[in-house]
Amino acid sequence: MNTPSSVPALQQGFSSDNIAGASPEVMEALLRANAGQAPAYGADDGSLRVQRKLAEIFEHDVEVLLVPTGTAANSLSLAAMTPPWGAVLCHTQSHIANDECGAPEFFTNGARLMLLGGEAAKIDPVQLAAEARRKVGDVHSVQPSCVSITQATETGSVYTLDEIQAIGGICRDAGLPLHMDGARFANALVSLGCTPAEMTWKAGVEALSFGATKNGVLGAEAIVLFNPARARELAFRRKRGGHLFSKMRLLSAQMEAYLTDDLWLKNARQANAMATRLAAGMQGLPGVTLQGPADANILFCQLPAHAIDGLLEQGFRFYYDRWGPGVVRLVTSFATQEQEVDYFLSALRAQVA
Amino acid sequence: MNTPSSVPALQQGFSSDNIAGASPEVMEALLRANAGQAPAYGADDGSLRVQRKLAEIFEHDVEVLLVPTGTAANSLSLAAMTPPWGAVLCHTQSHIANDECGAPEFFTNGARLMLLGGEAAKIDPVQLAAEARRKVGDVHSVQPSCVSITQATETGSVYTLDEIQAIGGICRDAGLPLHMDGARFANALVSLGCTPAEMTWKAGVEALSFGATKNGVLGAEAIVLFNPARARELAFRRKRGGHLFSKMRLLSAQMEAYLTDDLWLKNARQANAMATRLAAGMQGLPGVTLQGPADANILFCQLPAHAIDGLLEQGFRFYYDRWGPGVVRLVTSFATQEQEVDYFLSALRAQVA
Amino acid sequence: MNTPSSVPALQQGFSSDNIAGASPEVMEALLRANAGQAPAYGADDGSLRVQRKLAEIFEHDVEVLLVPTGTAANSLSLAAMTPPWGAVLCHTQSHIANDECGAPEFFTNGARLMLLGGEAAKIDPVQLAAEARRKVGDVHSVQPSCVSITQATETGSVYTLDEIQAIGGICRDAGLPLHMDGARFANALVSLGCTPAEMTWKAGVEALSFGATKNGVLGAEAIVLFNPARARELAFRRKRGGHLFSKMRLLSAQMEAYLTDDLWLKNARQANAMATRLAAGMQGLPGVTLQGPADANILFCQLPAHAIDGLLEQGFRFYYDRWGPGVVRLVTSFATQEQEVDYFLSALRAQVA
Amino acid sequence: MNTPSSVPALQQGFSSDNIAGASPEVMEALLRANAGQAPAYGADDGSLRVQRKLAEIFEHDVEVLLVPTGTAANSLSLAAMTPPWGAVLCHTQSHIANDECGAPEFFTNGARLMLLGGEAAKIDPVQLAAEARRKVGDVHSVQPSCVSITQATETGSVYTLDEIQAIGGICRDAGLPLHMDGARFANALVSLGCTPAEMTWKAGVEALSFGATKNGVLGAEAIVLFNPARARELAFRRKRGGHLFSKMRLLSAQMEAYLTDDLWLKNARQANAMATRLAAGMQGLPGVTLQGPADANILFCQLPAHAIDGLLEQGFRFYYDRWGPGVVRLVTSFATQEQEVDYFLSALRAQVA
Repeated sequence: MNTPSSVPALQQGFSSDNIAGASPEVMEALLRANAGQAPAYGADDGSLRVQRKLAEIFEHDVEVLLVPTGTAANSLSLAAMTPPWGAVLCHTQSHIANDECGAPEFFTNGARLMLLGGEAAKIDPVQLAAEARRKVGDVHSVQPSCVSITQATETGSVYTLDEIQAIGGICRDAGLPLHMDGARFANALVSLGCTPAEMTWKAGVEALSFGATKNGVLGAEAIVLFNPARARELAFRRKRGGHLFSKMRLLSAQMEAYLTDDLWLKNARQANAMATRLAAGMQGLPGVTLQGPADANILFCQLPAHAIDGLLEQGFRFYYDRWGPGVVRLVTSFATQEQEVDYFLSALRAQVA
Repeated sequence: MNTPSSVPALQQGFSSDNIAGASPEVMEALLRANAGQAPAYGADDGSLRVQRKLAEIFEHDVEVLLVPTGTAANSLSLAAMTPPWGAVLCHTQSHIANDECGAPEFFTNGARLMLLGGEAAKIDPVQLAAEARRKVGDVHSVQPSCVSITQATETGSVYTLDEIQAIGGICRDAGLPLHMDGARFANALVSLGCTPAEMTWKAGVEALSFGATKNGVLGAEAIVLFNPARARELAFRRKRGGHLFSKMRLLSAQMEAYLTDDLWLKNARQANAMATRLAAGMQGLPGVTLQGPADANILFCQLPAHAIDGLLEQGFRFYYDRWGPGVVRLVTSFATQEQEVDYFLSALRAQVA
Repeated sequence: MNTPSSVPALQQGFSSDNIAGASPEVMEALLRANAGQAPAYGADDGSLRVQRKLAEIFEHDVEVLLVPTGTAANSLSLAAMTPPWGAVLCHTQSHIANDECGAPEFFTNGARLMLLGGEAAKIDPVQLAAEARRKVGDVHSVQPSCVSITQATETGSVYTLDEIQAIGGICRDAGLPLHMDGARFANALVSLGCTPAEMTWKAGVEALSFGATKNGVLGAEAIVLFNPARARELAFRRKRGGHLFSKMRLLSAQMEAYLTDDLWLKNARQANAMATRLAAGMQGLPGVTLQGPADANILFCQLPAHAIDGLLEQGFRFYYDRWGPGVVRLVTSFATQEQEVDYFLSALRAQVA
Repeated sequence: MNTPSSVPALQQGFSSDNIAGASPEVMEALLRANAGQAPAYGADDGSLRVQRKLAEIFEHDVEVLLVPTGTAANSLSLAAMTPPWGAVLCHTQSHIANDECGAPEFFTNGARLMLLGGEAAKIDPVQLAAEARRKVGDVHSVQPSCVSITQATETGSVYTLDEIQAIGGICRDAGLPLHMDGARFANALVSLGCTPAEMTWKAGVEALSFGATKNGVLGAEAIVLFNPARARELAFRRKRGGHLFSKMRLLSAQMEAYLTDDLWLKNARQANAMATRLAAGMQGLPGVTLQGPADANILFCQLPAHAIDGLLEQGFRFYYDRWGPGVVRLVTSFATQEQEVDYFLSALRAQVA
């Protein structure tokens, strides 16, 4: 059997953490899981082990539904948390509002996203508290029904535990369940240095989109429910959405490997460290300004136009000018290597020298 | 890297073709595709090669959308072929009607499945011709909007080319597009010994759910559009349904390997041959009656109750008593080996001796 | 102010009970209600009086939602009784299945109508008992979620109290709520000679579409809930469906007049009596066959083709040939007069003489 | 037959134009239309006459669909103008965004309302031009699909012809159809003193919700299509939404009377004149500040808290404190009389003296 070359070229992509492949451990697990027959539709042993493993990790009984994409995980979770005439309170910069082509509206049968502001892509709790009670009981208005936060956020910032607890408290007071889009859950977790329990149910989170695809697998996410009451409904919604795999081992093997021997945490630490290394290396360069916190694996910065052009010409890849002229987003992943960061930095230094 | 044991135990499952894993060639392709960075969301080289390869195979320009499950492929296809107030004409025994938890209704925003009869799970063309014009223009009634047939059917029969052409003709006359659920497309194709073009667009098929999961991959299907006008809409519908993979190589690598060196046809021939071997071996056994044609890789038969019990006790797995008392469904796959069929047959002979 | 002529021409329409206008008492009530200012959106005094009046009539606490059409009443009721992945068990000849252009699917966000057979458009309880438990808990299948019966049925037959109780019992055993489409509720009630309570909640009905439009008003129906738990949700669904009137007095005044001084019962008795008179007059005419029971205000019969043609030529209006060659449906209403029936009968006698 | 008293009490409600009844001419027309039999579902003569009358008024071929509420008219129109993955561009203060409980999302199967700013509840054309092209073709984003403006706006301002043309031009350039919510169409029209054609299709409007309920009828609105291509689809959508009346004369008779002898224009002039009279009378009163233009029949103003309390105590009715402390909305209607305005003004003067 062929194996990938052991001396890979230096990768020049910083556009997203979804341009990397999967960790070798994940691919090996897939190979192993492929052998022989296995019951279909989630009755495989791997699925059961994943559920147990996540219960351990979260120190809580959980119901787990594996799905292939983050959009599916988010939209299905929200569909179980709001009626069609409900409003999902979320940040204006959230992935569910900007990057899912209306999937939340599709899966919820037409609920509305109520967009809230807040610094660093984190929901402003004062706005949240006001919106959570807006027009409640007024039959002419959509009804506040749940809250969704992203951890780490779309701009690479990370909610502190205090901040999550504050939002969790507002939700509890208003009777609204709290969803966390954890597409970069591991990156946030190692950034905070807390436990998964502290960052979720202990702070009031009821349903979590537990991301893995951006951090070391090829395509697998888990909906993790701390409130098991929503599980039955979600099983039907998942099937109805075309997200129940017959050969579920494709998802469960990836997820099991991801959770084994702390691979998920190691990967996240690598990604975050590379973002930190990028930030450190850019500090003080002429014409270069770092923007906002780089708590996780995303770094926003401002670069001179000629530097952007020069880097692109040399083959580097990243998004720029979307968030303002000269604003560049750099994303690292578990697969990013020190040499790759240093290669980028030296190229940038040459541009701005 | 570990590899699966080279001397697998005899597998005893005949419950479905989705209990097998993937062909080794597919797993190797996945490993290769995993290396390095790749553009996300379908802009990877593999996705482009798959589209070209399918155009060759079908001798026609095609638009291709890769999705992870057959339910997604079917429901998305139908959503592009009917308005919400439309009716999808299909067989009472079709997968879309019985096994997708209402996914067609979900993706079409509430269109209705109009169930038609017909021998061997094939739509009766006389009924179809009548229903295709039923209450057209009557604002009180859902409107016939498209037709969906399954090839091979859910009972293992296969539409002949004449039969597909007849249905295609009715569709053309009534102005209704024709969808084919090809979850077992390859099994039907090698059974008929015709070309992919003959079995699809030449007979009037506009959109095809091209199945691969049941025939050698872990999870990948293709929506193949012979009418490219529906492609743009489907790109949005796929994303909105949570079925656009960021690391699309997970799907494209599987599909590319599946189509390479005729793997898909070899796999289907193996599955079909094993069903034929099963049928031949059961012929004439006391108390055993074969039911309907076993044109592809599914065999229905009637067994004595004690034989069913005995086989189950010995570890064999299959569905029974769902379609009538004593009725057993046996499904073979690309992975089914002669020894496994023979092992089953000898056990059955012992039971009915 | 002009008033309609007091010597109306003989009306020749027997096509439906919706071709008549409203009772004079209803129009007078509308005029009275029109004066002065009234709170909007159902807070008018008339709406409150209607709710109280219906509670009296049904001898039960009820929640009432006024809506303008039967399709709205049915679809909204069903939407509160099934999840999107549910199945509504109903008769193949039911109005919700045949005459609402998929409104149930629209309002339920894609639930499925599971069509059952049964004599005289009444659900066969044996089939119902089987379907009520079909694939319960199977994630691949839509789930039986509620049952809907029509009283009087679409063919003019009437469920006996025993029959409703039997269906109610099956529903209770299976945990499925029972909806009654009472578009011709009054016609059935006076036919049975029972109380409204006996025909509904005492027999297991949870939600009723209480029809008035076909029996003496211009456009007003009531959703009557015997289980108040569904009321809050329905208030949002009604508004969201565009069925909450600002000037609710348009609906409430009609409905109040309809319920006052037993107008609804008088109207129904007139309609039924006219159907009975029709049936009696047709009995034994050469070439004329009555079909099924004419329990209420609908009469099916078979007429010679030349008689149909002759009647149409003379200006009579009715549906024919839809349910088979020569099959004619005659519908009477509260406004049908004895002379009109006799005029039709004499014309028919001349045709078949 | 009873008639309303000819000496009505002074009405004290200024909360909305939907608290009035209908014009006497409308009630008389209803009475007349009630006589005799009429074909159901819109085939009545009145419906045909309404369509012809509206074509005359708008100097353009039109397709007309009568519906009972403005929410139905708006939501159905929008549903024909956007796919489910589309965005409807509208003002943050629009009725469709704030007062319809998500009906647009329901009828469009989950399209998104993209909220734009702008003075006096009118869409800012610069923002519109930007949003109209935002992420077009980007599969991750909902797609700009149509634009909806309200004329007169929810705050009582009126778009000038130039302003509508500017928006129409942006729509044309971007390929987006333009919808007008004309719940107060007549009020805007007489305010501008232009023709219906100038305010609609000549300025780029494709579909109009032509309001009547707030201006002299009890419950009837018309969807007026200047682009007939959408009519067929809307016929199915209307039925499916439960908005096709069997006794359509209830709607058509109201609408016909509304359009006869310029009743609609007379009514609007009366309503507007009463708002002007209110504004004139409040000008310069101590502690009273008029807010924004009172182009039509809505007046926003700021009153001292004690004056609000005093007026409420005396039985006057209006909304206050919803748009800021001390902010009061006063709405007049066709039924508002000079004496009623003067009664309010004298009471206000007494409060602030």
